Amino acid sequence: MTESDLPVFERHPYLWGNPETPGHLPPAAAGALQAIGAMAPPPPVAPSAARVPQTTLPPEATDELVRALGAANVTSDHDARVARTRGYSMPDILRLRAGDASAAPDAVLFPGSHDDVLRVLAICSKHAIAVVPYAGGTSVVGGLTPARDGFAGVVAVDLRRLDRLVSVDTVSRTAVLQAGLRGSRAEALLNDQGYTLGHFPQSYEGAAIGGYAATRSAGQSSAGYGRFDEMVVGLTLATPRGTVTLGTAPMSAAGPDLRQFVLGSEGAFGVITSVTVRLRRRPVVRVFDGWEFDSFDSGAAALRSLVQDGPLPTVLRLSDEAETAVNLADPSGELGAGPGGCLLVTGYEGTREDVDATRTAATKRLSELGGENLGTEPGEAWRAGRYRGPYLRDPLLDAGALVETLETATFWSNVGPLKAAVTNAVQTALTEQGTPAIVLCHISHVYETGASLYFTVLCKQLDDPIAQWRKAKTAANAAIRDSGAAISHHHGIGTDHRETYALEVGPIAIDVLRAVKASLDPAGILNPGVLIG
Amino acid sequence: MTESDLPVFERHPYLWGNPETPGHLPPAAAGALQAIGAMAPPPPVAPSAARVPQTTLPPEATDELVRALGAANVTSDHDARVARTRGYSMPDILRLRAGDASAAPDAVLFPGSHDDVLRVLAICSKHAIAVVPYAGGTSVVGGLTPARDGFAGVVAVDLRRLDRLVSVDTVSRTAVLQAGLRGSRAEALLNDQGYTLGHFPQSYEGAAIGGYAATRSAGQSSAGYGRFDEMVVGLTLATPRGTVTLGTAPMSAAGPDLRQFVLGSEGAFGVITSVTVRLRRRPVVRVFDGWEFDSFDSGAAALRSLVQDGPLPTVLRLSDEAETAVNLADPSGELGAGPGGCLLVTGYEGTREDVDATRTAATKRLSELGGENLGTEPGEAWRAGRYRGPYLRDPLLDAGALVETLETATFWSNVGPLKAAVTNAVQTALTEQGTPAIVLCHISHVYETGASLYFTVLCKQLDDPIAQWRKAKTAANAAIRDSGAAISHHHGIGTDHRETYALEVGPIAIDVLRAVKASLDPAGILNPGVLIG
Repeated sequence: MTESDLPVFERHPYLWGNPETPGHLPPAAAGALQAIGAMAPPPPVAPSAARVPQTTLPPEATDELVRALGAANVTSDHDARVARTRGYSMPDILRLRAGDASAAPDAVLFPGSHDDVLRVLAICSKHAIAVVPYAGGTSVVGGLTPARDGFAGVVAVDLRRLDRLVSVDTVSRTAVLQAGLRGSRAEALLNDQGYTLGHFPQSYEGAAIGGYAATRSAGQSSAGYGRFDEMVVGLTLATPRGTVTLGTAPMSAAGPDLRQFVLGSEGAFGVITSVTVRLRRRPVVRVFDGWEFDSFDSGAAALRSLVQDGPLPTVLRLSDEAETAVNLADPSGELGAGPGGCLLVTGYEGTREDVDATRTAATKRLSELGGENLGTEPGEAWRAGRYRGPYLRDPLLDAGALVETLETATFWSNVGPLKAAVTNAVQTALTEQGTPAIVLCHISHVYETGASLYFTVLCKQLDDPIAQWRKAKTAANAAIRDSGAAISHHHGIGTDHRETYALEVGPIAIDVLRAVKASLDPAGILNPGVLIG
Repeated sequence: MTESDLPVFERHPYLWGNPETPGHLPPAAAGALQAIGAMAPPPPVAPSAARVPQTTLPPEATDELVRALGAANVTSDHDARVARTRGYSMPDILRLRAGDASAAPDAVLFPGSHDDVLRVLAICSKHAIAVVPYAGGTSVVGGLTPARDGFAGVVAVDLRRLDRLVSVDTVSRTAVLQAGLRGSRAEALLNDQGYTLGHFPQSYEGAAIGGYAATRSAGQSSAGYGRFDEMVVGLTLATPRGTVTLGTAPMSAAGPDLRQFVLGSEGAFGVITSVTVRLRRRPVVRVFDGWEFDSFDSGAAALRSLVQDGPLPTVLRLSDEAETAVNLADPSGELGAGPGGCLLVTGYEGTREDVDATRTAATKRLSELGGENLGTEPGEAWRAGRYRGPYLRDPLLDAGALVETLETATFWSNVGPLKAAVTNAVQTALTEQGTPAIVLCHISHVYETGASLYFTVLCKQLDDPIAQWRKAKTAANAAIRDSGAAISHHHGIGTDHRETYALEVGPIAIDVLRAVKASLDPAGILNPGVLIG
């Protein structure tokens, strides 16, 4: 396969994307930074100078791993370890910027096949070595930071060599993708054959197929293409007990849907080595429009109308007043002094005929619902910048801002109360610390019965920004739980949401998850402490 | 709630539906019966004369159950026991027609609340009494026939008193339905408020909400409304360990989708006492069209085109040549001598505007794909008779025919080979016994990546029709497994598919299911032997 010959996008330990194309702050950010009174902290420590712990892997285990994978595929190189230390949450990044790579794995392994993964799991089970399944490394919930206690060591199992588009079934419109294939690369390979996966999360440039599956990723075009868990019709899981292969039909009544039990298991039950996904025809036309609604409530009602009664665009996204102000503010203006109202973005993808029909009908409906059509400019601007968000964190942290996101989901009747509760919880927790925050919110994923809410929080960094944010995050988690909403819509549980998740599903369900883990992973080596304690 | 005051449709032990409206054979059936050489067997034994075993319930357990539920809600009445003996598969019915009610439960319980169910599970766990969760009683896969070995007795927990539409959230478009509510009654109650569930399985008149959920039911309008498991956004499960409540959002990344693990669990993990379902607006217009395609393959390609690239009708169904011949045969003609080709039925439901637009586009597309438009008559005829199928089994058995159905699902590229393999397996197994069969097939559920296949088998009964059918069913199961397809698309596993299911998902997955059951049901009382051994 020629695609394997292409260079792999190298993940920087704490900068998003390619360090050669760093993020630049938009003009509006200057106003925001001034408003919150941010002051630049000391510059970050270079990754090469980060402090990593002494490797604790038993030499006989390393020998067995080298025999199983080949010496080239087992490394304890400093840079390789630092690059796979934790994920991309703000606390993860702040620790690495401070030179703290204390959570570095003892070694990084590069299995080249499903059977290689089975061999790794057998060796690690035997030696009680914790295993972090590692695909794109873009977790923002501590999903790559396992517990070390009681283990002889920790290895990151980097799946980048499992990077093939294995096969395409043009009749069934399915493709088999290996877990280490980047989402952006998968899309390019499928586009070459006339198809699209239609999965475009903000982590698109970095995340990989296995991570999409293990964390129930949802992309920005989920209204039209569905979530990643809705795209998966089959999967292969390597466990310490052996291989589990699931998916004999698109849907069936053959017992519980075990695929939906592996999806979202975050590496705690096994390593997903490949998935079979549903494909769509590559769209011929893509158009994005902007709409202005006079309030978040009226915009949300419009989204709800479209998803419940149609017509349904491919992309639907609504920014609240604060987020709209940041996005639309005149570069010279003060934050929040831009045009009022809420920006709603609609996107349409497909054949010319389908796009025209849906867009015409949606335009009519949105106008009836009180929207003002802003034309394609704001829509196309959003589309052009839709993967740029993560790049902005680096210069914002450099400038002394605390910046982080969090997200949740609920049923439509609870969207308003949930938004108010989370906003208030975060604001209160930060204001009490003397750092009142700018809290932005948008709806980016809609369903017939509900929607997700995505919050961006910006305030001045204190001397201990990790502790500062922890208070806000704890308050947000409690507000989400008290509102009866889901602790995560598409980021996952990891370690950061584990306690709230346990409250959400209750102790009996957590015992079920523990029983499943004990059955599949008797030595408990798989991502210990992630998902369940 | 006034709906609780209405009379409950009483299930006859072996006749489908209301015995006052018995099934009448259509003219084509006479030809079929003649073709297979069926001869009428002895008439069935009246249910009142069926042989039931002595009740083995420990008296102290009965006392505790009476104290928990009230004497009126605990019965060992002969008729009540016989009526809840097994389900509606042909072997189930043949046994009861022969007066064999040896699988009758020792008692029938009528809990009136979720907490009542919890109390029943606690008492039965303590006394090692097997529990059959019982909603509509329409299982056709042995889902109501638990193992008795090692148990002090068996009770059927009939959920008919849990028959309320609890609430409707008109903003979120959801409703909470109790498990014992019949599907037809739920639909009527929702229609009164302007909504539809859109779930119309052939068992619609008899099956209930809890059964839909526990077995992953799929209705005839699944193309438009989805399967029942796709409608469920929340559920409440009573287990011997306590209550599990799931569904904080339409979709989330908060771990595995535990709802999808309870759906399809067939009473082995707990008793589903209520579900929260997604609603749609009650349609204003319903239109059904008939189409003729010259072969099953060309008709299947047309279905595939519509579901993959649109437009998508609400109902899509394709009969093969044999089923089309039986349906369309001139009453005076010989079986199979009717018009050739395959009947495809399309149904459209919604607003006038949506129906017109989708129907116009689908009509154009089906014509392009080689279909001949037969107008509304065949479509409306199918619609009018769509719940009549089960009624025909009674007079066919009376006339000495062996008649049974089975179903499976696979990906589109495997539909043709699967159909050939199953047809051949069943034909061979019956021909070898001297009873060549008429095997009919249709596609009734379509997905972007695949479809279900539903087979109807008709041949002459031998003296031991149960053994006769077992050979055919075993051959069909093996053909399905060898084809890599799902052992059930919408009937479930029960006891009849348990062994093939274990081969389908493999021993590691079966161990996972056992671990989950052990966690939720430590005494192993819940539907023992159903789903897993």
